[in-house]
Amino acid sequence: MAVLGTVAVELFIPLASLIGIAFAVLQWYVVAKVPVPTPTGGTAAGDKHGGGDEEEEEEGIDQVAVEIRCAEIQRAISVGATSFLLTEYKYLAAFMASFAAVIFVFLGSAQRFSTRPQPCPSNPSLQCRPPLANAAFTAVAFLLGALTSVMSGYLGMRVATFANARTALEARRGIGRGFAVAFRSGAAMGFLLASSALLVLYVTVNLFGLYYGDDWVGLYESITGYGLGGSSVALFGRVGGGIYTKAADVGADLVGKVERNIPEDDPRNPAVIADNVGDNVGDIAGMGSDLFGSYAESTCAALFVASISEFGKEHKYTAQMFPLLISATGLLVCLVTTLFATDLAKVRRAADVGPALKRQILISTVLMTGAIAAVTYLSLPPSFTLFDAGNVKHVKNWHLFICVSAGLWAGLIIGYVTEYFTSNAYAPVRSVAMSCRTGAATNVIFGLAVGYKSVIVPILAIVSAIYASFRLAAMYGIAVSALGMLSTIATGLAIDAYGPISDNAGGIAEMSGMASRVRRRTDALDAAGNTTAAIGKGFAIGSAALVSLALFGAYVGRAGIQAVDMLSPRVFVGLMAGAMLPYWFSAMTMRSVGSAALKMVEEVRRQFDAIPGLAEGLAIPDYATCVRISTDASLREMMAPGALVMLSPLVTGTLFGVETLAGLLAGALVSGVQVAISASNSGGAWDNAKKYIEAGASEEARSLGPKGSEAHKAAVIGDTIGDPLKDTSGPSLNILIKLMAVEALVFAPFFAQHGGIIFNRL
Amino acid sequence: MAVLGTVAVELFIPLASLIGIAFAVLQWYVVAKVPVPTPTGGTAAGDKHGGGDEEEEEEGIDQVAVEIRCAEIQRAISVGATSFLLTEYKYLAAFMASFAAVIFVFLGSAQRFSTRPQPCPSNPSLQCRPPLANAAFTAVAFLLGALTSVMSGYLGMRVATFANARTALEARRGIGRGFAVAFRSGAAMGFLLASSALLVLYVTVNLFGLYYGDDWVGLYESITGYGLGGSSVALFGRVGGGIYTKAADVGADLVGKVERNIPEDDPRNPAVIADNVGDNVGDIAGMGSDLFGSYAESTCAALFVASISEFGKEHKYTAQMFPLLISATGLLVCLVTTLFATDLAKVRRAADVGPALKRQILISTVLMTGAIAAVTYLSLPPSFTLFDAGNVKHVKNWHLFICVSAGLWAGLIIGYVTEYFTSNAYAPVRSVAMSCRTGAATNVIFGLAVGYKSVIVPILAIVSAIYASFRLAAMYGIAVSALGMLSTIATGLAIDAYGPISDNAGGIAEMSGMASRVRRRTDALDAAGNTTAAIGKGFAIGSAALVSLALFGAYVGRAGIQAVDMLSPRVFVGLMAGAMLPYWFSAMTMRSVGSAALKMVEEVRRQFDAIPGLAEGLAIPDYATCVRISTDASLREMMAPGALVMLSPLVTGTLFGVETLAGLLAGALVSGVQVAISASNSGGAWDNAKKYIEAGASEEARSLGPKGSEAHKAAVIGDTIGDPLKDTSGPSLNILIKLMAVEALVFAPFFAQHGGIIFNRL
Repeated sequence: MAVLGTVAVELFIPLASLIGIAFAVLQWYVVAKVPVPTPTGGTAAGDKHGGGDEEEEEEGIDQVAVEIRCAEIQRAISVGATSFLLTEYKYLAAFMASFAAVIFVFLGSAQRFSTRPQPCPSNPSLQCRPPLANAAFTAVAFLLGALTSVMSGYLGMRVATFANARTALEARRGIGRGFAVAFRSGAAMGFLLASSALLVLYVTVNLFGLYYGDDWVGLYESITGYGLGGSSVALFGRVGGGIYTKAADVGADLVGKVERNIPEDDPRNPAVIADNVGDNVGDIAGMGSDLFGSYAESTCAALFVASISEFGKEHKYTAQMFPLLISATGLLVCLVTTLFATDLAKVRRAADVGPALKRQILISTVLMTGAIAAVTYLSLPPSFTLFDAGNVKHVKNWHLFICVSAGLWAGLIIGYVTEYFTSNAYAPVRSVAMSCRTGAATNVIFGLAVGYKSVIVPILAIVSAIYASFRLAAMYGIAVSALGMLSTIATGLAIDAYGPISDNAGGIAEMSGMASRVRRRTDALDAAGNTTAAIGKGFAIGSAALVSLALFGAYVGRAGIQAVDMLSPRVFVGLMAGAMLPYWFSAMTMRSVGSAALKMVEEVRRQFDAIPGLAEGLAIPDYATCVRISTDASLREMMAPGALVMLSPLVTGTLFGVETLAGLLAGALVSGVQVAISASNSGGAWDNAKKYIEAGASEEARSLGPKGSEAHKAAVIGDTIGDPLKDTSGPSLNILIKLMAVEALVFAPFFAQHGGIIFNRL
Repeated sequence: MAVLGTVAVELFIPLASLIGIAFAVLQWYVVAKVPVPTPTGGTAAGDKHGGGDEEEEEEGIDQVAVEIRCAEIQRAISVGATSFLLTEYKYLAAFMASFAAVIFVFLGSAQRFSTRPQPCPSNPSLQCRPPLANAAFTAVAFLLGALTSVMSGYLGMRVATFANARTALEARRGIGRGFAVAFRSGAAMGFLLASSALLVLYVTVNLFGLYYGDDWVGLYESITGYGLGGSSVALFGRVGGGIYTKAADVGADLVGKVERNIPEDDPRNPAVIADNVGDNVGDIAGMGSDLFGSYAESTCAALFVASISEFGKEHKYTAQMFPLLISATGLLVCLVTTLFATDLAKVRRAADVGPALKRQILISTVLMTGAIAAVTYLSLPPSFTLFDAGNVKHVKNWHLFICVSAGLWAGLIIGYVTEYFTSNAYAPVRSVAMSCRTGAATNVIFGLAVGYKSVIVPILAIVSAIYASFRLAAMYGIAVSALGMLSTIATGLAIDAYGPISDNAGGIAEMSGMASRVRRRTDALDAAGNTTAAIGKGFAIGSAALVSLALFGAYVGRAGIQAVDMLSPRVFVGLMAGAMLPYWFSAMTMRSVGSAALKMVEEVRRQFDAIPGLAEGLAIPDYATCVRISTDASLREMMAPGALVMLSPLVTGTLFGVETLAGLLAGALVSGVQVAISASNSGGAWDNAKKYIEAGASEEARSLGPKGSEAHKAAVIGDTIGDPLKDTSGPSLNILIKLMAVEALVFAPFFAQHGGIIFNRL
């Protein structure tokens, strides 16, 4: 038996969640102490500021006016982001309600809406809950997951838009103070999300348990709906947010930087507010929902596989709760890790910022490794058996320690490799920058090559984690390996959210006319954030790969498939078609960003032509129209890719059956991961190659610059191409591969019963 | 029993090959009747011609001088191409000799170099040939395949460099005459290659048969070496030729079009000869070797699977020869098809060219469908059994008719879809062209999206052919489906080779100072060739997908694997790592083209600065240095990607075992096909978007042009980015997926015996 008793588990998990929430509130409270004046009610930004020319902006300027302008801009961003998210959620509410109905109907019809208890699959002498109850509870779990995801995204956005102006204001008093505000806000978001995800899941399991009683299989089957709900919202959040942010960003850059030669974030640019809103709805809300989805899905996959293994059959509560215990412990580890950045080793100089953020990842990983050993020892019996595609697998508790740690360390490797390929401190980005000497074409060729190359090590890291976990503990091993990678999610989100917050702070500093040295500080904060954003994306993709493999394994178990044999034509055609889906999906999202950006460009050009004095900074642009263009485009354009992802598993399972669907999932996974990593890293490399030229920090870099040189123009083109790759299509693919897998898992009983209409006849 | 007797088969196959060769010679003879004067011995091109300004070039100019210049340029191209190929083959000879030794040692050591006859696997009461003999014969077959491939590439290049000037000269007398020369030359190459490939294979089978006698399994196991040899040479041909041609092309364009604003193929550009040489060594020799490899491999796969099925076990000679009979019939069908273009419906106007070429594909497909029905009826018993992963599958002869036809028609669909996405007659390319309005970045974003989107239908076509063939006749079905797609290879190659020949002809017309209306005719010929080149690439990728799946099936059979179950960690990690290989490979080839192009740019810039009067057309550039840069770069840079492809299966099989290798092959296949199709079609779309703007054929196009406008510059950047995608990394991936599979097939006995050193311990 496990060392830890049932009561201890029942105390520890909610307690850890509540501590996490309290810690988040504390961080928020510290941030809130930075005063921001009440806006005067005028339109946002730029009304007095001439922009661009740094000489005017020195200290002598009116500090009160700057602060009020700061507050106005913050409010404009916050209003834009809130109104976009609320509109998005209105559409999502309709979608969620109808999809919950679909779940109920499909799952209910798998057993003809039977309301009679049925023999349990694991032990036919016992009675389990009726199929109709499972259908209903799955639909409820789906809605709970979706709501939690909405809440995660929304709260993240609120925290970020609360923090951006405060970061800029504090940066006036030193880079360390600016860093502290941005990082604490990131931590507030990270802990809030990670803790509430755990708490809601824990409460749901316990509430559902009141009805299910001893029927653990039914209970954890229903709980899988939670993962599906979380990931569905994440899909629309990522795709919609990604289109929003990149339409604005690309549109703003194409006219502002390329045609008008005005700096980034210049208040004269009509798309600048939309661009800043985009950071919050795309990188913050989208990323939050994405990682919440991964977390919910890997936990659901692990819980489900455990429920059909020894833990579930013999009702070993502590062992069954192992996934939640890992996450709960992770919260405490991340809490300690955060103190290293906020209290133990403070940031004082610009050069400290990057290392401080990177150190967070390393510290959390090292501490977590010890914590995993402890949790494994305390909560698992020394040896036990696990479900393995119809067989049982004999496993020792230290095997699971290896599985969880393998995921955790694979995440660290992916993070560091991503940094190597996307930071301008290393050779890859520098070679991309140097290729700008011969123009945009070679820049793009080299950038694509760097993205392709950056796939190698992350895939080998993932593959090693998969092999170790799979070999030692079958699909359960994969699921807990994914959880291992996500166990430090609070820290991961903190440094990830730090990026867009600093980015926004820089924009606000520029727009409100702060002194040039303040702007230099926010630039330094932002530069470090760019790298951590790339790391965060690598991390999100890596965990998505493990999660979807775990879900694939759970799906195979639930659908009763004994082997997914590529020598079966049904499986192989699924595999090949699945490998195509990421391309289809990317074609849609890339095109959406392109078309929306074209509209934005036309609007920005129109305003520069139509509004007299705009170029000279004497008139206020019409920000609201640009915000509306991004909002409309993203809401309209997210439908088709969303439908592709949601419908592919349903159509495949129904028409071609469970084996083809298994092939489809595997194909989408193995192909999508590569597309996602290469797209993100090509984009990151282009972005930082441009920054490398702009910063002119080395002899080589100065030979390419300055801003406005031919090489710099070529670099800007690369950066613009990378925008949709790294912030729209790349990260959305994470969700594609996870969501299709969890959807297959939820609908497995229906497909197993009624699927394969076409192939059964051919 | 089959209707057709052994003697009839033994007569028909060589006779058809000889007819094909005779037809090729006849075409060559007709082309050779166009007189080309002996060059005067001066250096090639440009010595009197000022270039660029069309007004000077009208009819009044000295026709004899033009002809002599034509001949000089032709000689320079021919000398450059010959010297490159001979150098490449010198390296290849060393590689082939050592790899033949590797084959011998690995295969010999699988059974400890046993020289004793062993019991046959299919019938242990009979004695089969000793393993050492199989190892030796496989090595010999490997060398024969490699030599045939070398010959295919070399002869193709000779035909093309023989025809390019003649096409330009004949174009002076009308577009129909120019078309006839280019098309007949293409046909000469197509028939020569297809016929000799069939003949050499047939002779090899018969010669080997003298030793093997009744041991058909041993015989056809050894014959698989033929496919490996063909594909190994194709790999280096494609990669080396691809880097050669694109380094020159990108380098020439970046300085010529972008910086100096001189037209394509202008004799003042020092890289122009290297660019034209590149078309011949890349698109002609590379493509020839590639399709020869597909043909050899699919035949080997089909023969091997047949030999371990009823045909082989019961020594049904006619049925065993079914794959060769299909190819032999295909030659005759293509012969008739060719007559439609050369004699029955002549080209008279520019508008006839494209339709005439497209009609070829349709005619050959329709005729071939009937021919397949006849061959199937005449050569196969009404019902029989085939090997199916350890089981037997009962098959009727009309099932095989469906398999072969499915491949054939899938090829047609892929061709037409490719045309849709890459021709500027349709919406996709036009939308890419329109996106140039907002600059290079949106052009690249839209082009990538078009490439991604173009994957969907080809994959669905391939998947349908796979499902039908797999379901009806297991892996044998896949192999003959691939053969079906390749049965019209002579026509496919003819229209494919037509492209680079016309491209070269256009270059020669420009460089030799022919009249502008001649140049317009060669432009029309070239434009149609661009589309057929794209179709040819789609076709090469489609067939590669089917071929490598067939080889995969044969490998699984030979390695004794019963199931390739993705729920085994060994298989899954192979699958994931395999899906990464196309990215690793593309990273290498893209980077190679980029670096080589940078060197070329520097050399071209240097010459423009250092040679007085070059820009004004008063001095002759140093073409030879540019040729040397391309040659050196491609020979040096083809090593690493070549090694990656050749070593991956060997290392994986040896260290991780046969199952992981099976996963690796499947992963590389399903991921590589997508990368290859999207890369080729993005490149084709950019190329034709640029041509669309240049041609100004519609209101819309004129609003973007003319040459030198901002939109046109953006289009040139897209075109340059697409160059390595569509002509280097994309098409090389075909070979990656085929070659790894055939290598696995050849080495299967070794891996089965000694493979898996690492995973067997973990």
